[in-house]
Amino acid sequence: MSKHEIDIIKIGGNIIDDEKSLQNFVAQLALRKTPFVLIHGGGKVATTLSKTLGIETKMIEGRRITDAETLNVVVMVYAGLINKKIVALLQAENKNAIGLCGADANIIQSEKRVAEIDYGFVGNVQHISVDALRLFIDNNFIPVLSAITHDRNGQLLNTNADTIASEIAVTLSNAYDVSLYYCFEKNGVLENADDDNSVIEKLNANFYGQLKSEKKIHSGMIPKLDNAFAALNNNVKQVFILHANKINEANAGTELVK
Amino acid sequence: MSKHEIDIIKIGGNIIDDEKSLQNFVAQLALRKTPFVLIHGGGKVATTLSKTLGIETKMIEGRRITDAETLNVVVMVYAGLINKKIVALLQAENKNAIGLCGADANIIQSEKRVAEIDYGFVGNVQHISVDALRLFIDNNFIPVLSAITHDRNGQLLNTNADTIASEIAVTLSNAYDVSLYYCFEKNGVLENADDDNSVIEKLNANFYGQLKSEKKIHSGMIPKLDNAFAALNNNVKQVFILHANKINEANAGTELVK
Repeated sequence: MSKHEIDIIKIGGNIIDDEKSLQNFVAQLALRKTPFVLIHGGGKVATTLSKTLGIETKMIEGRRITDAETLNVVVMVYAGLINKKIVALLQAENKNAIGLCGADANIIQSEKRVAEIDYGFVGNVQHISVDALRLFIDNNFIPVLSAITHDRNGQLLNTNADTIASEIAVTLSNAYDVSLYYCFEKNGVLENADDDNSVIEKLNANFYGQLKSEKKIHSGMIPKLDNAFAALNNNVKQVFILHANKINEANAGTELVK
Repeated sequence: MSKHEIDIIKIGGNIIDDEKSLQNFVAQLALRKTPFVLIHGGGKVATTLSKTLGIETKMIEGRRITDAETLNVVVMVYAGLINKKIVALLQAENKNAIGLCGADANIIQSEKRVAEIDYGFVGNVQHISVDALRLFIDNNFIPVLSAITHDRNGQLLNTNADTIASEIAVTLSNAYDVSLYYCFEKNGVLENADDDNSVIEKLNANFYGQLKSEKKIHSGMIPKLDNAFAALNNNVKQVFILHANKINEANAGTELVK
């Protein structure tokens, strides 16, 4: 028997930040026939809230430094405000969404990152509970996952949403035919970062290496593409990087190929 | 065949506000043999955050007036910060908690309250999805519910946690033998509000009516007791009001009786 299909969809910060973009995106998700898992970060809402609370936001190489106060803010914004807004919008479209963070049902266990740079309360994904995810998916729920995980010792950890999407896609690929979609505010992987029409339709690892060595790839795209290729090389059937508005369009954005 | 037992446990704001009390409470929960559903509010954390954000907290008769900004705060604090903290603490005790608000899995649908006083984005419980709750309980998850619900039109609503506990207890009583525990920072229902040792061991509706008419019951206790008696009168087997520290003690607090 062939495996059932599932789509893993990551939605980026700039879409979430804007109420109208988010509503439009959710309306498009509601039209999809294939079941999906949605993964979201939080973007600027957390930065704005931190600012209002007088907590300084520190970023190194596009990654947030998560001290104890910042962790509280991202848990509130990602796992609370944004997650529940998305769930309520999906429910209004008759999609039975269930909003979860990685601590819920022990879905994503992580380990505090130990590195030269002290990122604070940041987790590296260690284990994904495929049984819990399958229970929800097979009972027709739509898991909506915020990028907060836990270490199983009671500590919540801020975690990269692109990595979570990739790891979940790989983990579920034993049981399902998995397609992975990275949705954001650009049209795809661009050959010229300043030209939104220079979308690369098919990108393989060689070409990616070449673009990197020519420094044509925007530095913020590199971790996303590394995650995306990791999925493609680990049994995920299809991987796309595309504009959130085009999630239901065939051949939109960049498809990663071997 | 006799029905399986389940405990519905409501934990009040003053326990949640204090990190140490919360940890102690969770450690006690971890020792329990009977499966349970935990319902929590948010208490002072939301008030403190509102204050820092320059949002004025308005209360009428112990109920928060929830304008749009306040709703965002309570969603962040209840469904985000507090809910995920409790889940992570339970997971550290090997209890497979799953943190949910009423929008998740459409567990609690509510309707915006229309009343003489405009309470803002406040919901009255309309429907509880017993199928979703049973799926989680029967798969050995511990649902941890924050008191945020939704109207199925995309609107999140702040909802009374005592009422949610009572409604869930009643709804589950068809399928389970349900005991309901209201845990807070006092020893039970007090005959003399100033004397924490004046706990009424058994309280029936007549005695409750008498205490009310004599104005011996603290006004904040009345909605809680109304909810508690509603559960007792609708198939819930046992209802207790007790100190959070005594959740595992036999004969602690006040038992409601018919």
